[in-house]
Amino acid sequence: MKISLERRLTAEFFGTAFLVAAVIGSGIMGERLAGGNIAIALLANTIATGAALVALILAFGPVSGAHFNPAVTLADWMEGGIARNDAAGYVCAQMVGGATGAVVANVMFGMPAVSISRHARGGGAQLFSEFVATFGLLCVIWGCSRAKSEMVAFAVGSYITAAYWFTASTSFANPAVTLARELSDTFAGIQPRNVPAFVAVQIAGAIAATVVFRWLVPGLPQNAKDVIVSHPTKD
Amino acid sequence: MKISLERRLTAEFFGTAFLVAAVIGSGIMGERLAGGNIAIALLANTIATGAALVALILAFGPVSGAHFNPAVTLADWMEGGIARNDAAGYVCAQMVGGATGAVVANVMFGMPAVSISRHARGGGAQLFSEFVATFGLLCVIWGCSRAKSEMVAFAVGSYITAAYWFTASTSFANPAVTLARELSDTFAGIQPRNVPAFVAVQIAGAIAATVVFRWLVPGLPQNAKDVIVSHPTKD
Amino acid sequence: MKISLERRLTAEFFGTAFLVAAVIGSGIMGERLAGGNIAIALLANTIATGAALVALILAFGPVSGAHFNPAVTLADWMEGGIARNDAAGYVCAQMVGGATGAVVANVMFGMPAVSISRHARGGGAQLFSEFVATFGLLCVIWGCSRAKSEMVAFAVGSYITAAYWFTASTSFANPAVTLARELSDTFAGIQPRNVPAFVAVQIAGAIAATVVFRWLVPGLPQNAKDVIVSHPTKD
Amino acid sequence: MKISLERRLTAEFFGTAFLVAAVIGSGIMGERLAGGNIAIALLANTIATGAALVALILAFGPVSGAHFNPAVTLADWMEGGIARNDAAGYVCAQMVGGATGAVVANVMFGMPAVSISRHARGGGAQLFSEFVATFGLLCVIWGCSRAKSEMVAFAVGSYITAAYWFTASTSFANPAVTLARELSDTFAGIQPRNVPAFVAVQIAGAIAATVVFRWLVPGLPQNAKDVIVSHPTKD
Repeated sequence: MKISLERRLTAEFFGTAFLVAAVIGSGIMGERLAGGNIAIALLANTIATGAALVALILAFGPVSGAHFNPAVTLADWMEGGIARNDAAGYVCAQMVGGATGAVVANVMFGMPAVSISRHARGGGAQLFSEFVATFGLLCVIWGCSRAKSEMVAFAVGSYITAAYWFTASTSFANPAVTLARELSDTFAGIQPRNVPAFVAVQIAGAIAATVVFRWLVPGLPQNAKDVIVSHPTKD
Repeated sequence: MKISLERRLTAEFFGTAFLVAAVIGSGIMGERLAGGNIAIALLANTIATGAALVALILAFGPVSGAHFNPAVTLADWMEGGIARNDAAGYVCAQMVGGATGAVVANVMFGMPAVSISRHARGGGAQLFSEFVATFGLLCVIWGCSRAKSEMVAFAVGSYITAAYWFTASTSFANPAVTLARELSDTFAGIQPRNVPAFVAVQIAGAIAATVVFRWLVPGLPQNAKDVIVSHPTKD
Repeated sequence: MKISLERRLTAEFFGTAFLVAAVIGSGIMGERLAGGNIAIALLANTIATGAALVALILAFGPVSGAHFNPAVTLADWMEGGIARNDAAGYVCAQMVGGATGAVVANVMFGMPAVSISRHARGGGAQLFSEFVATFGLLCVIWGCSRAKSEMVAFAVGSYITAAYWFTASTSFANPAVTLARELSDTFAGIQPRNVPAFVAVQIAGAIAATVVFRWLVPGLPQNAKDVIVSHPTKD
Repeated sequence: MKISLERRLTAEFFGTAFLVAAVIGSGIMGERLAGGNIAIALLANTIATGAALVALILAFGPVSGAHFNPAVTLADWMEGGIARNDAAGYVCAQMVGGATGAVVANVMFGMPAVSISRHARGGGAQLFSEFVATFGLLCVIWGCSRAKSEMVAFAVGSYITAAYWFTASTSFANPAVTLARELSDTFAGIQPRNVPAFVAVQIAGAIAATVVFRWLVPGLPQNAKDVIVSHPTKD
């Protein structure tokens, strides 16, 4: 049974909303409880984000593929896995979902619905980190594109769990999540002036990985329409 | 081979008992050992609860479906996955099991079998958190309803692991567990006066998610009888 | 292809040795590094033990079934899954393996090969905890006996991860491991005088769970010979 | 479809690079944030490394088998799973990849591209630990050689997660990673003078485990060409 675009966009909306709520909410909780030890706060933030990805990809993947990330949708479009109009819809749903998730997280913790972040995240090391983080994320996604759907959820969740710690930027690796993080002046936030550069290098990293895998796995386009999770689409 | 109702209720009893024992017991252990750092206590509580869910759903799912949660049983009944009388039996078994688990946890740690909690958990932020937490839990369960049984255990365990941190209420998301947590005046407890509102918003969240997924996945009722884990039932 | 008894005993030896080395070694490392915070030491001990179980059951399960635990072998013998002589061999291999693992852990950390533990672990709460811990372990093992082999590794690893925190005794739940823990006067040790009672309640818990599951899952004996992991045996 | 050697070497390069970046990068991040508590820094380092292994083996395994480790390639060659020339190529790709990963990690954290480690890791306890760590790693790999490909990723990730804590050396267990860790004077580093002995005992451990499993699983060579992850090779 083919799944209509409106259902797929709804799945992208809810999935990205919960993802951002998990990122921001666990950051707030971690910072509040950790008594000043940033490593413990980030550990909680990491575990919550990685676990949320596993659950959300397994839950929403069969409907929309569980992109939750404009960089993934872009890469999928490059390989012919998603039509241009559908891709545009996906990106919109992800951005609206992400902003909604930020508001939900703020409200759950009794804070103003929106507070613009003042968390500075600039400089070459941070930007190189985001390039590496998104390059690696797309390597994992393309590398698993022929694997069983359920495994991709664990691969992506595990990758982000690791990347929170092995990149200096804690691996945003997602333009919709980056935009949404502007809306919470808390642990996981990013100040608006740093966003454009973050998004630019994330897109560059996604494109670079896609070009590498186009050569590494010649049959890639045949699997592109089933990225991240196999889902029957109506064209 | 069909499984009799008494066997299914026994599985719900043991599963919910172990779930509550894990929630309360690990809260006591975490608080005792963490030397005042609440984040570390909650991290232990989180890991124990998420891991317990994986093990218990894999173990008891093939018998009863591994609901362990009246909100899940209610949602399943809404979609025609379980008969009304069976559902009532499930809820009773879950509540008795939950209370038993609380007593077992208290006794394992050398405390009085029952001590009414004085842990205040009220206010709009907490209640909104419980709505979101249970809404998300049912999204994950319905979203995975067509997936392989074994994956649901990981999806639910991962979701609760995340939700402990991304909701201000640490995501009870389960009326039977909420009732049982009254019975232990420890880390994971909740004072009786806060329970009715918690249960009300949990039920509202479960209903809301079920309504959303009824539209999102039109074939949902066909899978409802196999929620959470596929199990042969005798009707 | 049937697997000879000597090969199966070798697998039990190595599996139990690595399990005990993981339990004791990570306890030593955790205590050394945690700067006096017992919760952090136990968290490291927990993660290492749970992860080791996943890896060891997946690795040695196809050869011997990956019991690594006399209580499991006893329960399996009760259901006709293993012959009496083979069971006796398993228990010996587990005990020799456990002791070897303790010595290896001690030597890896530059300590005397054997140092008798002075860690007191007595009293009713501790013993009740061990009964509950082993009862739950066998529930998980029998409950998963019809599941795919690979899932059992995760179920057992997850269960022990949880039980380390939700029981007051940190869930030894294994007579061979209990005996071996006498041999290291470190974090995970137990003084010899507490061992007999621990072993007794562990066996009682295993028998109780087996009796419950004999009723709960009538077809249990048919799956008993493939507990924990399906392995072709030569009789 | 057979996969050409150049593609397989590229996969080994990227996989080992990301593995080393994860090991070194998370070590830097952990040490910076942990406020002097080494256990918390190592916990972050552990979780990042174990999770990275799961993601990278799932992603690159279908191309090259996901060795990422000269000790694994050597053991695979011993059992006839890889031709000598291919094995030599694998080892080169792993070493170049590892060094690249170290440089990337250093640069991501705003440090000089290369800084020779002064971290002393000598003595018999450390060397015995590395022997045990690599022996165990190859036991897990050979033990899972007949299992489903996806499970091996979790087995290896779980094993290393455990071994970081249960060996005194934090389980390098990989000559290419050991060499690369010389290039970062940070948490995960090792001073050059300790490297030759580490590599020697790692190789000894890998050979010992291979000899044990040659007897334990007689059909081993038939599965050797699919270690760690099944991948179609062109000979």
